[in-house]
Amino acid sequence: MLERIRKEISGIREHIDGKCVAVQVPEGLKQYSAEIMDALRRNGAREVFLFIDPNFGACDLKDREARGLGADVLIHFGHNRFGRITETEIPVIYIPITLELDVKKTISVLQEINGRIALCTTVQYLPYLNEIKKLLGDKIVIGKGVLATEDGQVLGCDPGACNVEADVNVIITDGIFHGILAKMQTGRKTYILTPAGKLIDVEPHVERYLRQRETAKILARDAKRVGVVITTKRGQMYTDVAERIAEIIRNAGTDADILVCDYFYPEYVEGMPYDAYVFTGCPRVPIDDYTRFKKPVLTVAEAMEVWGR
Amino acid sequence: MLERIRKEISGIREHIDGKCVAVQVPEGLKQYSAEIMDALRRNGAREVFLFIDPNFGACDLKDREARGLGADVLIHFGHNRFGRITETEIPVIYIPITLELDVKKTISVLQEINGRIALCTTVQYLPYLNEIKKLLGDKIVIGKGVLATEDGQVLGCDPGACNVEADVNVIITDGIFHGILAKMQTGRKTYILTPAGKLIDVEPHVERYLRQRETAKILARDAKRVGVVITTKRGQMYTDVAERIAEIIRNAGTDADILVCDYFYPEYVEGMPYDAYVFTGCPRVPIDDYTRFKKPVLTVAEAMEVWGR
Repeated sequence: MLERIRKEISGIREHIDGKCVAVQVPEGLKQYSAEIMDALRRNGAREVFLFIDPNFGACDLKDREARGLGADVLIHFGHNRFGRITETEIPVIYIPITLELDVKKTISVLQEINGRIALCTTVQYLPYLNEIKKLLGDKIVIGKGVLATEDGQVLGCDPGACNVEADVNVIITDGIFHGILAKMQTGRKTYILTPAGKLIDVEPHVERYLRQRETAKILARDAKRVGVVITTKRGQMYTDVAERIAEIIRNAGTDADILVCDYFYPEYVEGMPYDAYVFTGCPRVPIDDYTRFKKPVLTVAEAMEVWGR
Repeated sequence: MLERIRKEISGIREHIDGKCVAVQVPEGLKQYSAEIMDALRRNGAREVFLFIDPNFGACDLKDREARGLGADVLIHFGHNRFGRITETEIPVIYIPITLELDVKKTISVLQEINGRIALCTTVQYLPYLNEIKKLLGDKIVIGKGVLATEDGQVLGCDPGACNVEADVNVIITDGIFHGILAKMQTGRKTYILTPAGKLIDVEPHVERYLRQRETAKILARDAKRVGVVITTKRGQMYTDVAERIAEIIRNAGTDADILVCDYFYPEYVEGMPYDAYVFTGCPRVPIDDYTRFKKPVLTVAEAMEVWGR
């Protein structure tokens, strides 16, 4: 990993030499901070600022903050450009980090699946898709999402790459979440294929997920007052959506206030007078942090089911 | 409390009528969010955005974020203007909340103290100072801090209001922290006087505090690599100080990197390769969160003691 990071950094030497550089790294790379900072300085960076707020995607791009610090360039590790962000306040260099994948094993697992496969993956395994497609030909169909900027790429907010004509979805990744979204969006059989070559049918996970979300919606339906939450994160800020949702909730006879934060931590709303929340930013927040919130937190789509009509 | 908040809000009706209003409240007022939001709308606010990130001072002013949401005005509850913030991106209305104080009891306690008293307090009890001064005359001396904008006001980063000719400091407040700072800055006898009239000598607290800080400095001295932390909070951002401190640490033969965050949460640096941190924002962070950090966190002044010379 360190070798790859150092190689990536020396590859952008011309963009950092003599410059003041700001850096964002995903949680998994924080352990290599010292080496990353040293490599940047060895390649000529005059000063380096490392953001340590947890970063889960390029939707949380810190270009404004980097400019405020006086940085000339922002290096964003671990993700590629997020579709909603087209202009930035200083130049941004994205360095996605590719992880190991057992291609041989992957191919043999895919060959045993009947029918055409809508194949997609997260940014960490993107470079393998072409190689697989070349070997398996028409059996593999690669689509393109809306907010994800690369062919075949899925995001926690965008499973759109599987929206192609195919018989089954296969998502190469090590979590279940993207598979649940893909299954819900297309209705068709969906598998997670782990980097080690394990094939997982998401069906039982979808069922558990739907039960959990059904409970959240039922609880929210009884709310007397709802907090509609906007995050100020660059690519996740949907002020107009929040205003519209608040209006819909009010029209349904329920009080609604618009709340704003950077991260939506459960501690922030403890003791506040809301019986339910709608989070308008990353759809993973209501779902991943389900057990940490004492009150139901709905996505925008779920809020429409509860209060819209 | 609710009555007072409603009165304050109707008092600024002309500034909110027909406007899009953003609001910041301290943690203690979050429980009244519904009433605050309703009162703002009753007084004509077209839309209200309530920030829910924890707010501990007007140094953490969200005027930029409020403008980003499309707000016309920001109402900041619980604090008055912070000295470093002179210009804002949209108009800001500060509504400090005055808490109950037993003035009679306060006067009688002050009368029993020998010598001239440098009297100061936090924003919650500021309006009482004049009344007390009027009754006790020359016995009371009221100074002015640097970052605190009102006569007699102390902040967690600015005990300067006690820097006047006097025999003893008395700080009306319900915590110990400001007293420790005042004692350290002036060297003279310092008491906390609680709103209920209890007089507390800070001496033993200072001793405990100094032992705690000494330990932090001793641990930091052995650090191989130090993280110098900048916060992006509006009034607490000291980029130049961080750069200078990092340089001083490097000149002392120790590696130093500059880290950046909004809040400095202990979880953010877990697993990172730093043996000690210097926090360049609010000095309460290294001290109040002492037990939550696994590594020593120093203030800027402490860092100078360890690495400067």
